[in-house]
Amino acid sequence: MAVKARRLGVKFRPHFKTHQSKLIGHWFREEGTKSITVSSVSMARYFIGDGWEDITIAFPLNLRESDEALELSTRADLNVLITMAEPLESFGQLMKGGHRPVGIFIKIDTGYNRTGLTLADNEKIESIINTCRKHSMLTFKGFLTHTGHTYNARGREEIDMISREAFLQLRSLKDKFDSGPGDLLLSVGDTPACSLLEDFGGMDEIRPGNFVFYDVMQTMIGSCGTSRIAVCLACPVVSKEPSRNEIVVYGGAVHLSKESVFHKGKTIFGLVCSLSDGGWSEPLDDCYVNALSQEHGVIKVSKEVFNIIKPGDLLGILPVHSCLTAQCMGNYLIDGNIVEPHM
Amino acid sequence: MAVKARRLGVKFRPHFKTHQSKLIGHWFREEGTKSITVSSVSMARYFIGDGWEDITIAFPLNLRESDEALELSTRADLNVLITMAEPLESFGQLMKGGHRPVGIFIKIDTGYNRTGLTLADNEKIESIINTCRKHSMLTFKGFLTHTGHTYNARGREEIDMISREAFLQLRSLKDKFDSGPGDLLLSVGDTPACSLLEDFGGMDEIRPGNFVFYDVMQTMIGSCGTSRIAVCLACPVVSKEPSRNEIVVYGGAVHLSKESVFHKGKTIFGLVCSLSDGGWSEPLDDCYVNALSQEHGVIKVSKEVFNIIKPGDLLGILPVHSCLTAQCMGNYLIDGNIVEPHM
Repeated sequence: MAVKARRLGVKFRPHFKTHQSKLIGHWFREEGTKSITVSSVSMARYFIGDGWEDITIAFPLNLRESDEALELSTRADLNVLITMAEPLESFGQLMKGGHRPVGIFIKIDTGYNRTGLTLADNEKIESIINTCRKHSMLTFKGFLTHTGHTYNARGREEIDMISREAFLQLRSLKDKFDSGPGDLLLSVGDTPACSLLEDFGGMDEIRPGNFVFYDVMQTMIGSCGTSRIAVCLACPVVSKEPSRNEIVVYGGAVHLSKESVFHKGKTIFGLVCSLSDGGWSEPLDDCYVNALSQEHGVIKVSKEVFNIIKPGDLLGILPVHSCLTAQCMGNYLIDGNIVEPHM
Repeated sequence: MAVKARRLGVKFRPHFKTHQSKLIGHWFREEGTKSITVSSVSMARYFIGDGWEDITIAFPLNLRESDEALELSTRADLNVLITMAEPLESFGQLMKGGHRPVGIFIKIDTGYNRTGLTLADNEKIESIINTCRKHSMLTFKGFLTHTGHTYNARGREEIDMISREAFLQLRSLKDKFDSGPGDLLLSVGDTPACSLLEDFGGMDEIRPGNFVFYDVMQTMIGSCGTSRIAVCLACPVVSKEPSRNEIVVYGGAVHLSKESVFHKGKTIFGLVCSLSDGGWSEPLDDCYVNALSQEHGVIKVSKEVFNIIKPGDLLGILPVHSCLTAQCMGNYLIDGNIVEPHM
């Protein structure tokens, strides 16, 4: 992804919410990454503690964490997201000497309908920009969107259409509000678009996160094949249910979270693979996580697989949503070592 | 629940997987509780560390944690669940002097179809009992079921029917396999049945867990009213979306988990209440958690509520599944103090 961003002339600001790991952050640093995205103030603090100094907190400013964010702004260049003028005014009044100026991105809703202003919100956008002008420590940086509706898309064509529409909206905002030639930044970046597009249509920055691991959801969207999924949950087999060809593993909602996806006519909670010292296999045919309760995972398997598996064996589960599984598990086994728990 | 168990003459062995908290465990102790249920070996260790000495690990024996379980059996009376003879044989061979005998419950599937043997599995049940007889450190205790299919039921009548059927099955197993008068124990206990039944039909023990907090799911089932929900997630308001009457809070899938329930014609991820120093209100009319992403909660509210709420306010969310929310959050604010992080 770093290579692709260089090739296409956009800044690469990967979202670290998926892995939440200092070690994996180092791999990005080795690829030349200096700027990152996080989803919370606490995640910003965690990575500032590992030497990252250019961080966008891609989450609407939480006034209840203003003091903490300001303290962090003495140690790093922070950007925050704004969807309304009022909280920004309160935040600006708290700033004083010793803080580095905080960058302000206006969050634009380009169709995902989660949060953000739209093209029609001229006055609100102007009001936010004016608030930035009033406070010398607030720097208006530009417009940011998350085209999360690509997660409901399937295949390059749909994702291309959603992205083009978003790029068009952001460019029109830049045309309208740019005070000088090219001052304002346009920031985009969901994993499906960043994986599949070869043209970021005038955007300045991409912020994909999930691609670091990918997951079953991304294979359904068409962002990648199953061989690109880079995280797998190792689950001990604890029971076999012969009447249903089901294997019960120690691996439930507290480990995988409870995200599901519709796959080959069924709602599934993960795909299943066999494990080896070197890693894991491609997903086993006709095997999937059929149900999750708090600690139990119920895996439907083919008769052949059923007959081979024994209690005490390990099965691998490719998660539907790797961000949530990584969050639940808290650390990783990499090259045979359990790496430091992430934040 | 402790009072009810005494009144109905059944042993009370509450499941601690819902709260996972030493402090809340102490409240049970003050009610006279001496025996508990947990869902993992690590949870058993956590509560043994707080002086609990009679613990059922209500999860099929995980051979990969045999050594850890045996180490714990030097410090507490443990019961484990068995669904197959083979793992028990391996486990029995590891036991030696210094361990306390480990109690064995055979897990019976009375219709939930998750895990366990059935009435038809005579030979397998005999084989497990014989394995216990062979190993002096394994004590066959009886039969245990989890009628989790009550979670798909609605109202006392359906839950009563499911429970009676389960009790009938367990009693017939006791009649068949009891070697002396009343030796074998029958253990049941999902929260809906324990909340609604006034007759445990010959069962010896109940193991409800969720009732300690209840949640939106339990109100849908009919186990309780919303005023009995005893856990609430306080979420800062970070954005308002006027075109959709939606409030965005810092409170997403990593905080609430991603359990949903069908409520008044919609899939919802929680109900919404207002917070005060003393606690929280009844759920606000026509307000619900409409969507969750990793850190965002999107709350649909009435126009009246929308107009009152400001960024920086706190809203309370009653979780759909309190066990998972408690697990995600890791600690509690009780009487104004953040209590020690749970396991």
